[in-house]
Amino acid sequence: MNMHNNHLYQTLQRIQAGSMEIDEAYRQLEMLPYENLGFARLDHHRAVRDNFPEVIYCEGKSVEQITEVFKHLAQQNHSVIGTRVAESQFRAVKECLPDVQYNPTARLLFLQRASVATIGKAAVITAGTADIPVAEEAALCMEIMGAEVARIFDVGVAGIHRVIDVIPQLNEVRVVIVVAGMEGALASVVGGLTKRPVIAVPTSVGYGASFKGLAALLAMLNSCASGVGVVNIDNGYGAAALAVAILNSFNG
Amino acid sequence: MNMHNNHLYQTLQRIQAGSMEIDEAYRQLEMLPYENLGFARLDHHRAVRDNFPEVIYCEGKSVEQITEVFKHLAQQNHSVIGTRVAESQFRAVKECLPDVQYNPTARLLFLQRASVATIGKAAVITAGTADIPVAEEAALCMEIMGAEVARIFDVGVAGIHRVIDVIPQLNEVRVVIVVAGMEGALASVVGGLTKRPVIAVPTSVGYGASFKGLAALLAMLNSCASGVGVVNIDNGYGAAALAVAILNSFNG
Amino acid sequence: MNMHNNHLYQTLQRIQAGSMEIDEAYRQLEMLPYENLGFARLDHHRAVRDNFPEVIYCEGKSVEQITEVFKHLAQQNHSVIGTRVAESQFRAVKECLPDVQYNPTARLLFLQRASVATIGKAAVITAGTADIPVAEEAALCMEIMGAEVARIFDVGVAGIHRVIDVIPQLNEVRVVIVVAGMEGALASVVGGLTKRPVIAVPTSVGYGASFKGLAALLAMLNSCASGVGVVNIDNGYGAAALAVAILNSFNG
Amino acid sequence: MNMHNNHLYQTLQRIQAGSMEIDEAYRQLEMLPYENLGFARLDHHRAVRDNFPEVIYCEGKSVEQITEVFKHLAQQNHSVIGTRVAESQFRAVKECLPDVQYNPTARLLFLQRASVATIGKAAVITAGTADIPVAEEAALCMEIMGAEVARIFDVGVAGIHRVIDVIPQLNEVRVVIVVAGMEGALASVVGGLTKRPVIAVPTSVGYGASFKGLAALLAMLNSCASGVGVVNIDNGYGAAALAVAILNSFNG
Amino acid sequence: MNMHNNHLYQTLQRIQAGSMEIDEAYRQLEMLPYENLGFARLDHHRAVRDNFPEVIYCEGKSVEQITEVFKHLAQQNHSVIGTRVAESQFRAVKECLPDVQYNPTARLLFLQRASVATIGKAAVITAGTADIPVAEEAALCMEIMGAEVARIFDVGVAGIHRVIDVIPQLNEVRVVIVVAGMEGALASVVGGLTKRPVIAVPTSVGYGASFKGLAALLAMLNSCASGVGVVNIDNGYGAAALAVAILNSFNG
Amino acid sequence: MNMHNNHLYQTLQRIQAGSMEIDEAYRQLEMLPYENLGFARLDHHRAVRDNFPEVIYCEGKSVEQITEVFKHLAQQNHSVIGTRVAESQFRAVKECLPDVQYNPTARLLFLQRASVATIGKAAVITAGTADIPVAEEAALCMEIMGAEVARIFDVGVAGIHRVIDVIPQLNEVRVVIVVAGMEGALASVVGGLTKRPVIAVPTSVGYGASFKGLAALLAMLNSCASGVGVVNIDNGYGAAALAVAILNSFNG
Amino acid sequence: MNMHNNHLYQTLQRIQAGSMEIDEAYRQLEMLPYENLGFARLDHHRAVRDNFPEVIYCEGKSVEQITEVFKHLAQQNHSVIGTRVAESQFRAVKECLPDVQYNPTARLLFLQRASVATIGKAAVITAGTADIPVAEEAALCMEIMGAEVARIFDVGVAGIHRVIDVIPQLNEVRVVIVVAGMEGALASVVGGLTKRPVIAVPTSVGYGASFKGLAALLAMLNSCASGVGVVNIDNGYGAAALAVAILNSFNG
Amino acid sequence: MNMHNNHLYQTLQRIQAGSMEIDEAYRQLEMLPYENLGFARLDHHRAVRDNFPEVIYCEGKSVEQITEVFKHLAQQNHSVIGTRVAESQFRAVKECLPDVQYNPTARLLFLQRASVATIGKAAVITAGTADIPVAEEAALCMEIMGAEVARIFDVGVAGIHRVIDVIPQLNEVRVVIVVAGMEGALASVVGGLTKRPVIAVPTSVGYGASFKGLAALLAMLNSCASGVGVVNIDNGYGAAALAVAILNSFNG
Repeated sequence: MNMHNNHLYQTLQRIQAGSMEIDEAYRQLEMLPYENLGFARLDHHRAVRDNFPEVIYCEGKSVEQITEVFKHLAQQNHSVIGTRVAESQFRAVKECLPDVQYNPTARLLFLQRASVATIGKAAVITAGTADIPVAEEAALCMEIMGAEVARIFDVGVAGIHRVIDVIPQLNEVRVVIVVAGMEGALASVVGGLTKRPVIAVPTSVGYGASFKGLAALLAMLNSCASGVGVVNIDNGYGAAALAVAILNSFNG
Repeated sequence: MNMHNNHLYQTLQRIQAGSMEIDEAYRQLEMLPYENLGFARLDHHRAVRDNFPEVIYCEGKSVEQITEVFKHLAQQNHSVIGTRVAESQFRAVKECLPDVQYNPTARLLFLQRASVATIGKAAVITAGTADIPVAEEAALCMEIMGAEVARIFDVGVAGIHRVIDVIPQLNEVRVVIVVAGMEGALASVVGGLTKRPVIAVPTSVGYGASFKGLAALLAMLNSCASGVGVVNIDNGYGAAALAVAILNSFNG
Repeated sequence: MNMHNNHLYQTLQRIQAGSMEIDEAYRQLEMLPYENLGFARLDHHRAVRDNFPEVIYCEGKSVEQITEVFKHLAQQNHSVIGTRVAESQFRAVKECLPDVQYNPTARLLFLQRASVATIGKAAVITAGTADIPVAEEAALCMEIMGAEVARIFDVGVAGIHRVIDVIPQLNEVRVVIVVAGMEGALASVVGGLTKRPVIAVPTSVGYGASFKGLAALLAMLNSCASGVGVVNIDNGYGAAALAVAILNSFNG
Repeated sequence: MNMHNNHLYQTLQRIQAGSMEIDEAYRQLEMLPYENLGFARLDHHRAVRDNFPEVIYCEGKSVEQITEVFKHLAQQNHSVIGTRVAESQFRAVKECLPDVQYNPTARLLFLQRASVATIGKAAVITAGTADIPVAEEAALCMEIMGAEVARIFDVGVAGIHRVIDVIPQLNEVRVVIVVAGMEGALASVVGGLTKRPVIAVPTSVGYGASFKGLAALLAMLNSCASGVGVVNIDNGYGAAALAVAILNSFNG
Repeated sequence: MNMHNNHLYQTLQRIQAGSMEIDEAYRQLEMLPYENLGFARLDHHRAVRDNFPEVIYCEGKSVEQITEVFKHLAQQNHSVIGTRVAESQFRAVKECLPDVQYNPTARLLFLQRASVATIGKAAVITAGTADIPVAEEAALCMEIMGAEVARIFDVGVAGIHRVIDVIPQLNEVRVVIVVAGMEGALASVVGGLTKRPVIAVPTSVGYGASFKGLAALLAMLNSCASGVGVVNIDNGYGAAALAVAILNSFNG
Repeated sequence: MNMHNNHLYQTLQRIQAGSMEIDEAYRQLEMLPYENLGFARLDHHRAVRDNFPEVIYCEGKSVEQITEVFKHLAQQNHSVIGTRVAESQFRAVKECLPDVQYNPTARLLFLQRASVATIGKAAVITAGTADIPVAEEAALCMEIMGAEVARIFDVGVAGIHRVIDVIPQLNEVRVVIVVAGMEGALASVVGGLTKRPVIAVPTSVGYGASFKGLAALLAMLNSCASGVGVVNIDNGYGAAALAVAILNSFNG
Repeated sequence: MNMHNNHLYQTLQRIQAGSMEIDEAYRQLEMLPYENLGFARLDHHRAVRDNFPEVIYCEGKSVEQITEVFKHLAQQNHSVIGTRVAESQFRAVKECLPDVQYNPTARLLFLQRASVATIGKAAVITAGTADIPVAEEAALCMEIMGAEVARIFDVGVAGIHRVIDVIPQLNEVRVVIVVAGMEGALASVVGGLTKRPVIAVPTSVGYGASFKGLAALLAMLNSCASGVGVVNIDNGYGAAALAVAILNSFNG
Repeated sequence: MNMHNNHLYQTLQRIQAGSMEIDEAYRQLEMLPYENLGFARLDHHRAVRDNFPEVIYCEGKSVEQITEVFKHLAQQNHSVIGTRVAESQFRAVKECLPDVQYNPTARLLFLQRASVATIGKAAVITAGTADIPVAEEAALCMEIMGAEVARIFDVGVAGIHRVIDVIPQLNEVRVVIVVAGMEGALASVVGGLTKRPVIAVPTSVGYGASFKGLAALLAMLNSCASGVGVVNIDNGYGAAALAVAILNSFNG
């Protein structure tokens, strides 16, 4: 019989013996609670476990579904975020939830009913201007979660002096998000110039043999620089979530 | 004229005016020094800038090249690491550099002439036993750089209780490396159970439609869990470098 | 001369000899009958042979073609199903066939003129809410064919407790359909927690490196759990057909 | 508070109240037990949960690892199976475990210390003779697990009469495994001719644009016949596991 | 000096010597004539050399360009064909060229000012009804070129008796075009049942892992049947061109 | 009731009525005969139906299997061919079958116990010398089947004059096989210069972005010339089979 | 200490010693200047360094962004170019910048306020008429930069005589751009017929297995002709930039 | 009648009229001469037309074939080059051709019987030491053809100061070849820092998601820097051929 089972068995014995309170046992043994809406199961403890509230991926969801999920999550969370939201969806949701906010560049829908504690500094750097929507999704998500964010846009490697120029800014933050499409070389160059952890976000910016971001994705995965982790193509939120996890890693 | 150029111009003016020492200016203006071996340019400042010494990718290098590089780097660094080194290469290099060490599972060659300061705790978790070589490359690299590493092997998601059982261990570290081949689902499950940053390493373990690690790579990039960054297939060192960057991010 | 030919030859001899009725021989020898509409050949015996009536794949078919096929099939079948039908197509067909029904989530058009015998229990489980249309296609097809279906939606692996919570429900059915996009890890986790046969349906839910369902497809094919069979991306009907074949396998 | 937590809480309350035995609670609450060998975690309850004992994927494992795992599993299981085992590995393992058996065509290593109950009939059909190793892996695995297996080899669709000839044999079993490389068309043809569930195994037999089994895999996933589930390329064991799950699905 | 040059040199010598007429030499030496419209170079001798007149690929061409090309080609050819023409393009062209004809299923625009000699019999067979537009493009092109065409539609391999039923029809023609999407298995089955040359046309019919016809294309290239040649996805015209080349191969 | 079934029913009625002989009915109704070796089912009627005897794909077959198959086929066929045969396999088979022949360039093993009737002329043209093994497989297969073959090697498009020089030779045959690796452009150039049907064989000659023949395969499928059909990469036999089907198409 | 650092140090020493002017040092040491618009960083020295002004990739940029960038660049450059500009974008920009010009075929927006010096001759050759937009983008960009351009359109390899006919024209220029979709064979044929450097531009013209230009791209990369460099699919501007770099390479 | 034919016709008329010498006409009209070795057709005029002698791709050629080709080419050329030659092949060829030379790093076999005129300066720059074999193939080929070559190795972008340091060297040459594997970012960085034409050679250096050079290839094709042309993966010779074409473009 292994330790895991012993732990369970002993907990049960302690309860039986009266040497442990049910609430203490419950706290130890319970799996995390959630709420069943029928079409969605909401995880109210996500913020504790994952740093982030349940972020809603809204592509392909109806306005009714988004509104319902936001309402339920808003009852137990200070912050709720919806990604990939069209402006028309925002307007429809706002009729039911007047305090919902929207950023059209980032395509983020969010509720923020209380201020959050500051968790540290991060930077978001893009290779081009077409990468800004993805970068803004990352930056705004991080800000909602409490990070202080430096935005540094349009510093592609074809003008390497622009990159070198911003390195001092990068060295003042704890984590750097690099957003680039086309050949995605910015991740390698930045990775070689800073000792901070680098989160690389390939974007679908480009055409032809960029294959909707595949070229940048492969380049970033093969980066010759150390300390670079990669997230999905156009996944600004995913980069933000990792950055916040890093920042929070030292806050407890 | 932009700030960057102003800074340069003003520095030059200060030197001319005698209000700044050449050495101070030099420190500010120089690019990082390196040494040219002809076939390789060694970067002696890498450790300062990048947390890691110049780690030598040894696949396709001759024993002579590896030995030469190790000798030069060892003169100015406390730690030198070579990755993807065959046992026969190790034996040949050891004749010239007797204090070089080798780990056959991780296929790492390394020199460590001084103890390093502890930088924090990390965990490496694998889905199967066939993933251990990649995991060991990650774990040993982190240890050489000063991290304390928990190794947790063979906890595939097909036996989910094994994963749940080790979550307490994961919550004691600051960063988690997940190493998995086949369908790579462990990254998502671990990512959902811990709030620590997760670095996912797909491995080439599998056959057929694993396409030498592509299936695991794509799965990890599409992880539904938050806070997951991905490195190249079988790139244990790359995961270690990112983990160390994260750990060091709070040490200054 | 092999057995096959012997069988044929002997049957012919028996007819010649008068020891077998033509109708008996005909039943044994005939290939299955079908009807030629010109643009489509309808297979009226499909229900007997394949558990399922000829299910019409309606994408790219005109309203006239769909109506014509439904009319002919309805003359000799109790149930007829059309998949991937737009609401506008349904409305046009309904004018000619007033008793045709439509489910807009599943995009299924169907006729059911008699109740069917119950064939057993199945479950359909999805990782997210965006997977529901594919899941509903599977669930409704199974119900039309006589299965009793448990729908369990939005139990992604990032909240593993949700999955564990529904395992008892899965153990009450004879076959489980898992519907998941993104990294498709749910198939492995469910496959490891139930001993029932698992039919995995990758969906095109996701973006970037999901490559329209390829990531989930590869993950499911490489599942480290045993007892998992995979169907085409978004192929809810295909999963239903396999599930019904399994359920019917023990009904004769 | 949701049902899941209620169940846990109530169980704890019942123990505290003395209205439930610890052993009953333990049985309900424990996760499945396993044993930690350091490099591998063995799951002794797998047979109960999954129909199959823990089957060891031996590619890339050392002889020592295989032997160790077999020894431990053999203490608590009647049957142990190792897949993708080279003949040289078998000979080395046999020195420590004399009653281990080996099938060189299927490349299976197995221990069978007790007879198993019969669970039903299955068929394995191949398109060519080069597909036989994969088919034999499937067939032998099923036999070790208690199935009665009909082997029907070399019935490619280019000679369609061969396929038609064996249909009566297929209709006598409860599940059919189709093994085919090249264009993999046999799955569609068999799927159209039998109402039994069909498990399709693409093989890497072929060259050029077969892309090591990709052509057959895609063909099988796109089968126009109903009731076909697909497993990984060359994954005979995976097909057997699904077939056994189907057969066992009606044994309780 | 090689034969080629000798031939040229000798021709020149014969002209100089007066032993060959300029016109004879010209006929031998000229490359084929064409006409330069600026945006297109029309090849008036194509019909002689290639069996087919210059067939215009109209996707991405303006109505003006199509009309201009048709006008010029019509001056020197009896038949002109445009492929992939939208109905709106046809209507615009018809205003300038009233005798132009259009087939909306095949999306073919064509002029036929004289009857053509019969060149032989061909058959076009499809797996489904959704493959008919591609099949019709092939059939109509062949008819314009003088072939007699049997259309046999909707005979997918999931109902193998339908295929067997039409084999006698296939054996009456000289060349068979098989049009199929999804898994494309019809090419193999037909290829195994007829000794006629088979031209396989994969179509983009399908979804998910059909990858817009890739699955059918790979299947057809890997056909286990002999005597199968493949053309591009959805390339009905290409199949017709090859079939006509085969038919003409014996007419001179 | 359709014609097919009527035909069967009427045949049975005629036998019963005594108006048709069993042997006549048997001839009409039987599927084609074959012989079951256990590991392989030999199709003795293939030559009649398919122009070609059953050609044995020998990759992955044991010497015993090849010998057994050759022996059985040789009893009922004049010609037997094995493709992809290593020289060592040939030597082993020759010990049992002394009159077997071998061509090391084409890697063909064959038996030819009677001369065959001439069926017509074909040409095989290669882009480079590295394509010769595939070309020789095609040429020799065609010769064994009765074709007269012109071999024209190393006429790549980078020296277009070489191609133009051989066009007269191509116009003397009825079908042309073009064998090319790298960018596969020869198929388009030859297709534009001859009106004969062109069978294009991409080869795996090349490196890097040739992706083992994929570049040539795609190029040939997209040929801008008319009348080009494509077979699998390196499939010289497949091209020969199609060419022979074309040649035989006019011999009855 | 390496040469690089010596150079820097010595420069600083010379300034301190008064033996070098600040302006001279500044000129040597400065990185290239640029201007920060917030959403874009404009590089005013690009023309000096790169032959080309900063060319604006306008896909996905707003009319406001394009106008802003054009205004700023126009202040310090004689020529400004925007690529992939829709006609509607042009009209909106023209309201603010009345002297902006637009070419609808090339989809180029440009300002040219001074005549440029002639830099040499180039040719652009296309395989088909559908390739003209990409070719025109290349040709017009080169003309704006000072090149004299010969346009040679619709000379596909299926009519090889057309290609041979234009070779003399190609030999009169210094660099040749070949634009082709489908199988992209024109690059190989032209590369074999001219000794000039050839820049190959694959286009997305085609369908099915052209995979949006992949077939042409791979063909061009595998060209058997020497002296061919490839740019991205549909990247007319990229080809022009390389051609201008070649022409300028000999102008200083 | 077009100009091309007029030219031919007029030439013939002039010969007939005696106003042109046969030799002059012959020179104008002949296609380029070549020699037929049976397995290879040698192009003796290649050096005139293409700058380069016929370079022999030796992979897959026998020692006999290589020797034969070298012998014939050496009779009419001053320089002959064989690429991808193993050392063992060199030793065997050297026995017949004692003055043949070999470079084991570049794997080049070559004959150089006369000195060549200098054609200009080029540079070859690599990202890593593992890229040196490909770079050396390019450098040595260029030197044999008359170029003066600067070799600059191991200047990866992760140490951007190394790249900046060598820019002055790059500005002294007329064309730059960039050789890089992994993420291939060096091409973009160099392309942004020099105005010279850049030829990018992706290498297969890397592992996992480098997919044997695909990542670097895609990155280079998507380079955000202007003036970059790409050749096949590992194709050092191809880059050299393009560079020499560029250098020669201004020599006549």
